[in-house]
Amino acid sequence: MSKPHWDLLLIHATLATFTDGAPCGLLSDAALACADGRIAWIGPMAELPADARAEHVEDAGGRLLTPGLIDCHTHLVFGGDRAHEFDLRLNGAGYEEIARAGGGIVSSVRATRAADEDALFAQSLPRARALLADGVTTLEIKSGYGLALDTERRMLRVARRISRELGISVRTSFLGLHALPPEYKDRRDDYVALVCDDMLPALAAEGLVDAVDAFCEGIGFSHAETQRLFERAKQLGLPVKLHAEQLSDLGGAALVAAFDGLSADHLEYLGDDGVAAMAKAGTVAVLLPGAFYALRETKLPPLAALREHGVPIAIATDCNPGTSPLLSLRLAANMACTLFRLTPEEALRGVTVNAARALGLPDRGSLAVGQRADLVLWNASQPAELCYWIGGNLVRQMWLGGEAIVPVP
Amino acid sequence: MSKPHWDLLLIHATLATFTDGAPCGLLSDAALACADGRIAWIGPMAELPADARAEHVEDAGGRLLTPGLIDCHTHLVFGGDRAHEFDLRLNGAGYEEIARAGGGIVSSVRATRAADEDALFAQSLPRARALLADGVTTLEIKSGYGLALDTERRMLRVARRISRELGISVRTSFLGLHALPPEYKDRRDDYVALVCDDMLPALAAEGLVDAVDAFCEGIGFSHAETQRLFERAKQLGLPVKLHAEQLSDLGGAALVAAFDGLSADHLEYLGDDGVAAMAKAGTVAVLLPGAFYALRETKLPPLAALREHGVPIAIATDCNPGTSPLLSLRLAANMACTLFRLTPEEALRGVTVNAARALGLPDRGSLAVGQRADLVLWNASQPAELCYWIGGNLVRQMWLGGEAIVPVP
Ligand SMILES: [Zn+2]
Ligand SMILES: [Zn+2]
Repeated sequence: MSKPHWDLLLIHATLATFTDGAPCGLLSDAALACADGRIAWIGPMAELPADARAEHVEDAGGRLLTPGLIDCHTHLVFGGDRAHEFDLRLNGAGYEEIARAGGGIVSSVRATRAADEDALFAQSLPRARALLADGVTTLEIKSGYGLALDTERRMLRVARRISRELGISVRTSFLGLHALPPEYKDRRDDYVALVCDDMLPALAAEGLVDAVDAFCEGIGFSHAETQRLFERAKQLGLPVKLHAEQLSDLGGAALVAAFDGLSADHLEYLGDDGVAAMAKAGTVAVLLPGAFYALRETKLPPLAALREHGVPIAIATDCNPGTSPLLSLRLAANMACTLFRLTPEEALRGVTVNAARALGLPDRGSLAVGQRADLVLWNASQPAELCYWIGGNLVRQMWLGGEAIVPVP
Repeated sequence: MSKPHWDLLLIHATLATFTDGAPCGLLSDAALACADGRIAWIGPMAELPADARAEHVEDAGGRLLTPGLIDCHTHLVFGGDRAHEFDLRLNGAGYEEIARAGGGIVSSVRATRAADEDALFAQSLPRARALLADGVTTLEIKSGYGLALDTERRMLRVARRISRELGISVRTSFLGLHALPPEYKDRRDDYVALVCDDMLPALAAEGLVDAVDAFCEGIGFSHAETQRLFERAKQLGLPVKLHAEQLSDLGGAALVAAFDGLSADHLEYLGDDGVAAMAKAGTVAVLLPGAFYALRETKLPPLAALREHGVPIAIATDCNPGTSPLLSLRLAANMACTLFRLTPEEALRGVTVNAARALGLPDRGSLAVGQRADLVLWNASQPAELCYWIGGNLVRQMWLGGEAIVPVP
């Protein structure tokens, strides 16, 4: 065997591998090497081949190294913001008054439609940068504020452009069934048909759709409408996921599980049947504590049942202008611990290995030979610190596919 | 009159002055000039003298300019962290078990005592940097993890050193009555006497004490013990403030008001008498939503009564290793809105003009001629955005006493 020659060798690191075994798959005083954008070697310092050579060697000084974090549920491409609505609400305005003032999701649809592609990109990029600066290297971005073919396309194109601009991985989800656009107010079926029969096939053909999502809720779309969309996704060979059981139990989780869906998201009102269906299908439960916090919800997702059935749990920011203007995945993990009582290990597996699974990306989210070399070196010495500190910037250094970057928030 | 010649001129800014009048004292399309570290001119662009000259001119492009934020209650100098304890608790450990594992405030006292001045500085500086990167230009820092003359001195010296290192203003508070140190477990009176008669006079003589604080609570120090400390502070001509009514109503707010105190802090259990006493004395109510969030408290401070009596309200991080490991004052403001239902304007006055008042610093916290030129230009266009976004980095540029800095988080 020839001597190993690597692009990058990190020595004296505390590795949270998120493989099975020790808490967080922890490996103390360890080394990790990368070649061709992948992890090429991993193990205790004592076992590092004496003749190992690398282009770059970095001494982590005992600091914590994790896989790049994965935010598996965001709506971060949108026009405008809803700060004024936030202000109105805190000044006592009710739903009616805010609607009269042009607020609610309609205002985000209006602002998104009004922005051309460059403007939408310019407005959305800082949000992706903020997540990146906090350790995120793979990101899901949904459409759903365009609600028409050209504007949904624009959102998905901006998502792809963010990936190219920052060098991070972006997975797109088509969320045409996010809300009924005002112009279809009295033609609900026509809109669902448009989404299923025109928009989805067209955007999929353009390579803009990695997965298909819907908002299955009393104020969103019904079980039957969602099923119609999922049938179409299946025909097109696209994986599905679902906003399910956030405000009521419509059986959305069981539906997405029946389609071997990647994830069911929110889940505060998830019942036992849904949990069992998800467990059987291997559908990930994506919890979104940012929306829970911002909406001051009190009903917790059924964590005991999810744990008991071994449903993998992921945590995401749900970054969106209305119910979760959250720009830090680490803060989402803190909220998962504080509000949902997840353990730090559960929360961290939720933003790494389980989030990768929620996106159908088995090549990341853990540290193991062959995995993508998306890495974060933290100003921290133990995994729990990533959930414990509230705010602040703990990132010391990041690598995207083995390439060092200094994230600028 | 000679033509104005300024060091810095900011044009086309949206100024949130936090003076009286319009919401947030807002002034659109305005200019602000600085000379000799102070604000020298402020007004609408249309009124800017045509012959005005400045060394540096910056076009704010309509962005929001505010006074530097002021964090008026922190414990950010400490050794170690309590992430392990956070982890234990979320894994089901009770108070007893954590105490047996060496947790609780005693562990922070132990780690702080074990750190020499350089180590304590190196550990604490990143926390101050994180606050600065988020817009904070004036910071209060308390002692209280040393609980012996030399270690309390070390904490206060580190606080002063942070000020010199970062160029930000730091106000120190001596918090010898934070907890009873283990070695005084059976000699409570001796410790109170030591704090009042030896430690406080000595540290005050060294110029290390800007104000005197105590933790007046069932698990802290009694009303009588606090009063004894305040009498001594009064003799020494030092202003007082108090951790009051966090877990029960011991009449701490009325006590600190009776000494014309700067602030009473926490206040979840504050009663009507306390509110009236604070209003009469002009004592600021400092609310600490980070601790409320992290401890999952449910009892809200009496906001209606505070508003009704016109008690000025400030918001602070309470940055500390046990109950509020919070590294963002903007996030504290978001929590004040989300959890306490403050309006964004109340929350923002709470981290500017009212926080200045809580520190006895009338020369900052608002934008007006003669005020210190501590300024933040934000990637935002309206004040409410500073409370609306959760996490992320909105700071575009900062000035400390008129000097531009690029904060590195
Ligand atoms: Zn969502
Ligand atoms: Zn405190």
